[in-house]
Amino acid sequence: MTKKKNREIILAKRPEGMPREDDFRLIETEMPECKDGMVLVKTLYLSVDPYMRGRMNGVKTYISPFELDKTITGGIVGEVVETRSPDLKAGDIVTANLGWRDYNAADSREVRKIDPGPAPVSTALGILGMPGLTAYFGLLDIGKPSSGETVVVSGAAGAVGTLVGQIAKIKGCRVVGIAGSDVKTKYLIHELGFDAAINYKTTADIKKALKDTCPNGVDIYFDNVGGDISDAIMPLLNFKARVVLCGQISQYNMNKPEQGPRVQPYLLVKSALMKGFIVMDYADRSEEGIRQLAQWISQKKLKYTEHVVEGLENAPKAFIGLFTGENLGKQIVKVS
Amino acid sequence: MTKKKNREIILAKRPEGMPREDDFRLIETEMPECKDGMVLVKTLYLSVDPYMRGRMNGVKTYISPFELDKTITGGIVGEVVETRSPDLKAGDIVTANLGWRDYNAADSREVRKIDPGPAPVSTALGILGMPGLTAYFGLLDIGKPSSGETVVVSGAAGAVGTLVGQIAKIKGCRVVGIAGSDVKTKYLIHELGFDAAINYKTTADIKKALKDTCPNGVDIYFDNVGGDISDAIMPLLNFKARVVLCGQISQYNMNKPEQGPRVQPYLLVKSALMKGFIVMDYADRSEEGIRQLAQWISQKKLKYTEHVVEGLENAPKAFIGLFTGENLGKQIVKVS
Repeated sequence: MTKKKNREIILAKRPEGMPREDDFRLIETEMPECKDGMVLVKTLYLSVDPYMRGRMNGVKTYISPFELDKTITGGIVGEVVETRSPDLKAGDIVTANLGWRDYNAADSREVRKIDPGPAPVSTALGILGMPGLTAYFGLLDIGKPSSGETVVVSGAAGAVGTLVGQIAKIKGCRVVGIAGSDVKTKYLIHELGFDAAINYKTTADIKKALKDTCPNGVDIYFDNVGGDISDAIMPLLNFKARVVLCGQISQYNMNKPEQGPRVQPYLLVKSALMKGFIVMDYADRSEEGIRQLAQWISQKKLKYTEHVVEGLENAPKAFIGLFTGENLGKQIVKVS
Repeated sequence: MTKKKNREIILAKRPEGMPREDDFRLIETEMPECKDGMVLVKTLYLSVDPYMRGRMNGVKTYISPFELDKTITGGIVGEVVETRSPDLKAGDIVTANLGWRDYNAADSREVRKIDPGPAPVSTALGILGMPGLTAYFGLLDIGKPSSGETVVVSGAAGAVGTLVGQIAKIKGCRVVGIAGSDVKTKYLIHELGFDAAINYKTTADIKKALKDTCPNGVDIYFDNVGGDISDAIMPLLNFKARVVLCGQISQYNMNKPEQGPRVQPYLLVKSALMKGFIVMDYADRSEEGIRQLAQWISQKKLKYTEHVVEGLENAPKAFIGLFTGENLGKQIVKVS
């Protein structure tokens, strides 16, 4: 009997600008050993997320960079297939930050068992995981929406944007989404209940489109994108507006910060706030967030969408697709 | 007996770029009539403040623009010389937002009597007035300094900057000021107790100077200036840093927002906050602020400096001087 092999994806080169498939490499390795206190986890789904682009540069930000020739790590949902921990049994479904591998051996304290009841287990990577909590805390804690206010979301058809818009609707806001295709803008309006949506790729005058769709100005701008789209919103900010900086996907493949019109004069005259955050800032409140998001799902107030690519070998392609606008909703990779 | 004449300064032209003296005109007018419920106020001091530049453009921001050929208005300290109100008597010293005139007639409800006891009455335009409250609320409510944190102040030798640095010292912070002359930087260090000060006009590498003087990074940046100086600070922001946008004096004479490196990526990776404000946002707490500032003065914890120009006719020159760095501390005009 031949010993079973494992596969994993390593960072072969640091991407320059837009990542390419040959920045990654799929390699065969030995199966990891499940030592005392550990579990062997078979990957069911892995998550590709825009923030991972930052880790591919050799620079520490709020998180350490990926190392060259080492496994890419990220959010995983998997099944325990072997256990040497009393905390977990074979068959348990867990989520953790693990390698892009078919199988990971992990300390049982580093994985979290998930309840397969309320929603498909893959949602632990989306609405009931990091993107869900990002939308929840970013919008509610920084944006602080009030009924009747106008909320604009960029990257509106992505994992976070789709949820931000829906939560803003739950809070009684007027919601305008900005996305990159008509399929997406129609989805936002007709499926998710956004009040309006702008296809930035086909709209000649974004400023005018924003003025038309935000007749009372903008109270909250939830920014996943940055760049020109954000520039167009600054002049529309209302007094005491809040700009929630969640992502800057338009900038991630640049070598240094782009030049743009300064935002400070706009923020100054409107007593407006701009605040960056990462979901880890709210680690101690994640249970609250998951509970509320799960309740909204069960009450049918919140819909979620997953965009699934099959096969570990296609994870790099799925990751790159985040930057070319391939995904509608949460992009995940089905591994097994 | 010839009837006494009044003088006032009107906005003759809307400045283009840097204001010039011929954008203003001194004219003679009749003495205003002190009607029922009003007081006649002889101007002792008038205030010139950077925010007034914005009012000289024909655009409404948080405040309406000055009208062409109409009197410039701003903070005034004056003496009641005639009264038709039971609230005030002749000889009372008052402060109000009134015209740049020798004499103003004002509704008694629009003026506030000041106690000439604790400090010279001119301080109602500075440390015990708008600039004092601006420093107090901007630093404490938005900056939220903690002992041991590093605070950088631009426009450090101005009316607001001098107070921000001293209040930050009271709160136990390391304070670095940025100003435009060696006289100013020496004053900040030797008179006001700043830990370090940078002369941006003579320092070739501001980034390096900031790194050297802020070895633990920057927790609070109190920004009166904007532009290149602010750009140099962004890469030094610490996790959860706060950027208090108080002024952008480097930008006020520009016709449209200047281009600069985008700030969003810096704010994002540091979960940092940038917030604009105006002192009016704290109108309901101004008594608290004045009380605390007066207490710090009496405890000798807070020093103030006034830069006095004499004569109503020199008010435009004093105003223009704000943009060329003439003033150390609060710029006021002694009218009578």
